[in-house]
Amino acid sequence: MSIHVCSPLYAHAVSLDQISTPSRVAGVDEGVSTAELGLAARNHGMPLEAMRYDLTPPGLHYLLIHYDIPFVDPATWSLRLDGLVDRPLTIDLDTLKALPARTVRSTMECAGNGRARLEPRPVSQPWLVEAVGTAEWTGVPLRDVLTAAGVSAGAVDVVFTGADHGVERGVEQDYQRKLTVAEALDPDVLLAYAMNGAPLAPQHGFPVRLLVPGWYGMTNVKWLTRVEVLDHEFNGFQQKAYVVRQSTDEPGEPITRIAPRALVIPPGFPDFMTRGRVVRPGLVTLEGRAWSGRAPVTGVEVSVDGGSTWSSAALAPDGGHRWAWRRWSHEWLATPGAHVVTARAVTADGETQPVEAPWNRGGFVNNAAHQIPVTCLEA
Amino acid sequence: MSIHVCSPLYAHAVSLDQISTPSRVAGVDEGVSTAELGLAARNHGMPLEAMRYDLTPPGLHYLLIHYDIPFVDPATWSLRLDGLVDRPLTIDLDTLKALPARTVRSTMECAGNGRARLEPRPVSQPWLVEAVGTAEWTGVPLRDVLTAAGVSAGAVDVVFTGADHGVERGVEQDYQRKLTVAEALDPDVLLAYAMNGAPLAPQHGFPVRLLVPGWYGMTNVKWLTRVEVLDHEFNGFQQKAYVVRQSTDEPGEPITRIAPRALVIPPGFPDFMTRGRVVRPGLVTLEGRAWSGRAPVTGVEVSVDGGSTWSSAALAPDGGHRWAWRRWSHEWLATPGAHVVTARAVTADGETQPVEAPWNRGGFVNNAAHQIPVTCLEA
Repeated sequence: MSIHVCSPLYAHAVSLDQISTPSRVAGVDEGVSTAELGLAARNHGMPLEAMRYDLTPPGLHYLLIHYDIPFVDPATWSLRLDGLVDRPLTIDLDTLKALPARTVRSTMECAGNGRARLEPRPVSQPWLVEAVGTAEWTGVPLRDVLTAAGVSAGAVDVVFTGADHGVERGVEQDYQRKLTVAEALDPDVLLAYAMNGAPLAPQHGFPVRLLVPGWYGMTNVKWLTRVEVLDHEFNGFQQKAYVVRQSTDEPGEPITRIAPRALVIPPGFPDFMTRGRVVRPGLVTLEGRAWSGRAPVTGVEVSVDGGSTWSSAALAPDGGHRWAWRRWSHEWLATPGAHVVTARAVTADGETQPVEAPWNRGGFVNNAAHQIPVTCLEA
Repeated sequence: MSIHVCSPLYAHAVSLDQISTPSRVAGVDEGVSTAELGLAARNHGMPLEAMRYDLTPPGLHYLLIHYDIPFVDPATWSLRLDGLVDRPLTIDLDTLKALPARTVRSTMECAGNGRARLEPRPVSQPWLVEAVGTAEWTGVPLRDVLTAAGVSAGAVDVVFTGADHGVERGVEQDYQRKLTVAEALDPDVLLAYAMNGAPLAPQHGFPVRLLVPGWYGMTNVKWLTRVEVLDHEFNGFQQKAYVVRQSTDEPGEPITRIAPRALVIPPGFPDFMTRGRVVRPGLVTLEGRAWSGRAPVTGVEVSVDGGSTWSSAALAPDGGHRWAWRRWSHEWLATPGAHVVTARAVTADGETQPVEAPWNRGGFVNNAAHQIPVTCLEA
């Protein structure tokens, strides 16, 4: 009958260690906590029906913001490029926008997509399957700016710092990720200032973010303030956090490129509460999107019996957009009863999606095939 | 170690009654379910730091969509106005946009805001406190269109139908809500086609939605297709659902105008997982917004000791925007230790916010004062 203080866990905290606790895995049958729900209320997924759009409108594109959305004044913003370079640079927004630009269509996905479907559930942003979106990003190739500054011999890593500040597992930090020099010199890597032809929305990194096509979202640092070239390997907090491992005493496997995935636009219409889907008998066009940051998607397979039998879907051409999702479709003659629709992507390397994903401590890279129960009513 | 089908509850459903179950209240200590999480992943709140903006960018404005976002083709869209009128009308988008327009700045809030903080928790969209946003909506006063059609004598209610289709508690439906004729003739009620100067985003009702300033969101029907004037009271599904009651065998009190509320921009910086806030000793400016769809807000009170003692905050003028939130601020000298910051709005009628909200079966209108635990570190 009452409300209570937001998160009683830390209502009496007086130190960072009390407010910022170690990572943990939920207990058996432990429901989603208020803290996880608080993350879900902020960091939203893409409603799956938005796969009808080639380019996701900014307000429907998934979002994962570790701390707060910082306020950055574009009039005073500048990007510092320094470290192991011949000519350190400070670039303001007008200067950046005056440089030759490129536009890259890119599907971005959170490395934690699917986390809340793992058992036991790693406690963090509780994604089901919607942490994805596709946009056209416009900006200056990072390579051009690095070349202008002159990367010195002996350079190893390039570190990107954002303006978002917070604490995580007891460590106070500005958000930072790295690329190797070779990765940073890829011509598709952008200092992006526009999304779908408009200035970045605040939640997508205004005024400038890093765009690394084909990589999971955590590498695409938002609200960029600094690019630093190092003569050694960078091993900051987020490098150590985004790894696949079974326990926290392993260093783990670093997470880089997006694993293949196909998603299905839920057919028919939903129940409000369960999101269960309802169709009526007859021909139902199943469609969706498929993508991979590894080898390109070359096929999509669809099953309407929960994965017992599979058919090849029609896959639309990539239109020259190597890093964007591709549309697929499949005609299904629905008959009254309970069905489970599922789809899986296949790549040029022969990689496909598992029906059950291997568990890991951080809940990353769960690309288990998307399953949608569908009820077909009597005619 | 495995994933499972999305919602096992209805994986074998073959009828609407199986897929679409009665409303319920969570058990003691029952965590948030996968179905509730699925709603949270789709229908996002406004990150509270976005209260820094007078107008919420569309992608940060809260969203509550009962079914799917429908695809509406603006080229073939039209609005039918019929029922008890002298001259039934069909209006296409170009015709609507050619009529004299008004712009109204309006704070919109979900009637279920705060639901997930009630104990026991009504099982539905699990809002914490962020289901709000403010925008400038441009459109044609509904009154002008109703006057053109000529509302007949004996008209009682005006029913608004959206293009979103689904099933809820076993009832298949297009989303519908009503106003009385007198409410519908209020000059601030709009057939809105623009939000913050741009066409509506798909998730905000493109191409045309109803805008009823001061009322909770459910009345602001999106993706409008029909306006029908009735000679009797309309008592459709959503009229019966959005009521305050203790049990489902009561008809309940209909929900209409937004109760007063003040929210606080969380001070300092957050912990990623707990969202706990950290400040350092010294002067901290506490600020936020306050609004009411009932009597206007005339004051905001702030407490830094969890509600034991209160101070008056500085309240910015409303700038002529009767239906928009107002900025408030208060200087706080933070000292090391654990604090709970809270705020409450006071209206011209003397209404204020409770510290504990009365419980109701649907989890509506929980305007309990916002409480934020803040840890102030040693210097």
